[in-house]
Amino acid sequence: MSRIVYVNGEYLPEEEAKVSVFDRGFLFADGVYEVTSVLDGKLIDFDGHAKRLERSLGELEMESPVTAEALLEIHRELVARNGIDEGLVYLQITRGAADRDFAYPEAAEPTIVLFTQAKPGLADSAASRKGIKVISIPDIRWGRRDIKTVQLLYPSMGKMAAKKAGADDAWMIEDGEVTEGTSNNAYIVKGRTIVTRHLGTEILHGITRAAVLRFAREAQMEVEERAFTIEEAKSADEAFITSASSFVMPVVEIDGQSLGTGAPGPVATRLREIYLDEMRKAAV
Amino acid sequence: MSRIVYVNGEYLPEEEAKVSVFDRGFLFADGVYEVTSVLDGKLIDFDGHAKRLERSLGELEMESPVTAEALLEIHRELVARNGIDEGLVYLQITRGAADRDFAYPEAAEPTIVLFTQAKPGLADSAASRKGIKVISIPDIRWGRRDIKTVQLLYPSMGKMAAKKAGADDAWMIEDGEVTEGTSNNAYIVKGRTIVTRHLGTEILHGITRAAVLRFAREAQMEVEERAFTIEEAKSADEAFITSASSFVMPVVEIDGQSLGTGAPGPVATRLREIYLDEMRKAAV
Repeated sequence: MSRIVYVNGEYLPEEEAKVSVFDRGFLFADGVYEVTSVLDGKLIDFDGHAKRLERSLGELEMESPVTAEALLEIHRELVARNGIDEGLVYLQITRGAADRDFAYPEAAEPTIVLFTQAKPGLADSAASRKGIKVISIPDIRWGRRDIKTVQLLYPSMGKMAAKKAGADDAWMIEDGEVTEGTSNNAYIVKGRTIVTRHLGTEILHGITRAAVLRFAREAQMEVEERAFTIEEAKSADEAFITSASSFVMPVVEIDGQSLGTGAPGPVATRLREIYLDEMRKAAV
Repeated sequence: MSRIVYVNGEYLPEEEAKVSVFDRGFLFADGVYEVTSVLDGKLIDFDGHAKRLERSLGELEMESPVTAEALLEIHRELVARNGIDEGLVYLQITRGAADRDFAYPEAAEPTIVLFTQAKPGLADSAASRKGIKVISIPDIRWGRRDIKTVQLLYPSMGKMAAKKAGADDAWMIEDGEVTEGTSNNAYIVKGRTIVTRHLGTEILHGITRAAVLRFAREAQMEVEERAFTIEEAKSADEAFITSASSFVMPVVEIDGQSLGTGAPGPVATRLREIYLDEMRKAAV
C-alpha cells in the first residue's frame, strides 16, 4: 500500500520520498506544517490552513516555494492519486538544505513535502461517540506556540504520558492555567457558556477553533475567550477539544475524574454536528 | 567537494545522504545530536559526548542503534575518508521513520546520521584572538534544555537576531538570569573567580563546560556555579563561552557594552590554552 508523496515538485512512491540529511527541518526543526482534513474526497477549510501557513512562514522569515493556488492543486492531486475519501493531507515546508549552521543559509531553496493519511470513519469515529479521556501535564514548550513549527517533541511526550496513564491525550498547564491539548485546542462548557483560552503566543491559533467559535456564536451560544484552571475544568458540565483532524471531540474525563454524566455532552455533540455539516458544504 | 556522509550503516556521497520524509526527526524534532571536534585528525573528548548521547537517548526512551565502540569507529572512518585535520563530526539519532502519529511508533528503527565539517584554523581562530560580541535575548526555549534535542529553531532565531544587531551570538535570559548562549555555556569572571550557571534542566550540560571547570579548579582558580544577571555580566572583568566547537571563546562586549579592556581577558585566554593542550593530549 505505497502512497504517492509530493516532494519538491515530484510525485514519488513513499519509499522514495526523501529529504537531504542537511535539511534544516531535520537538523534544526526549522520548518512549519499544516494538516487539512478530507471528507467525501474534499478539503476542509483549505483557505484557513493556507492563510495560517503564510503567517507561520512570515514569523520565521521564510517564503513559500509555491502559491496558495498551486498548493491547492497539489492537495487535490494527492487526494486523487491516493484515493482519499476520509483522511488528511499533511504539508511541511522547511528552510531547506544547507551546510549545518545555526544562522539561516543565504541561498537555500525551501523544502516542501506533502503526504496523505487515509482515516476511514474519521467523521463518525467511535471516539467521538464515546468521548476521550485526558490527563494534565505541565506545559514546558517554547514560548511561540502560535507558530505551527515541527518542534513537536514535547507534545509527543505528552501523548505518551497520556497513553501510559490509560488516557487519550494530555492538556497542558502553565502558571496554573490550561493552555491547550497536545495537538488541539481545549474547551469547557458551564451551563450554556463555552470557555476556551484567548489567543496569544501561548497557544496555536486553531483553524478549527475559529470556525467552531463562529458557528457557536451563530447558534446563539455564549462564548468566553479566557484562561481556565484544571480545577475549573474538572467541575465543568462538559469539555471538548477541536483540531483539524478530530473536528470537535468530546472530553469525558480529566485526570481520572468524570465530567457530568461521563458521556459526551449536548454542546460538544451539537457543535460537532454543526461543524461537520457546514464544513462539508464549504469543502473544496 | 562532496563529503562522505554516514546514514544508517552506509557511507554515501553527501548528495545521496537522505532520510525518509516520514523520519520523526523531520516531522517531530524527535531526535538528539552531538558535535565532536577534531584537532590534528583526532577526536576531542569523544567519551564525554558518547556518554551524554546515551543520557539524551535515555531521557527520550530511545535506544542507540550502535554501541559506543561502533560509534567511535564511524567517527574515525568519516574523519579519515573526508581528510579532516581540524573540524568536527556531527552525529544525530532520531526515533526513525513511521507513519505520522504523535505517539511513538512501536517498531521503528532509529535513524543514525553522521557527517563532518572541515574547519581549518579552528584552534587558532581570529575570533578567539579578538573575542566575540553578544547580545541578550529572552530565553523562550522548552523546559528540558539538558536533553540535547534537535529543537534548535529558537537558538537559530537568536543567532540571526545577534547577526542583525552586529554581534556574534546571543545570551538568553530567563527570570532575570542568564541561562546560556545559543549553542554554548556562558561564563563571567570577577577578579580570580569564574562564575557559570549551575547545572539543571535550564541549560545544556556542556561536555566542554565539565572539562574547563575541571581544568580551572586544577589551576587553583575559584569557580562558582550559580546563576548571574546580565547586569552582573556587564560589570564583570571578563566573560567567555565554551562549546565543543568553539572551545573557550572570550566575550568582549555584551549588549554594546565593552568588558574590561575590550580585549580577551587573561582568564579566558589561559583557560583556552589549557583546554586545547590537555584535550590534544587526550584526543583519540
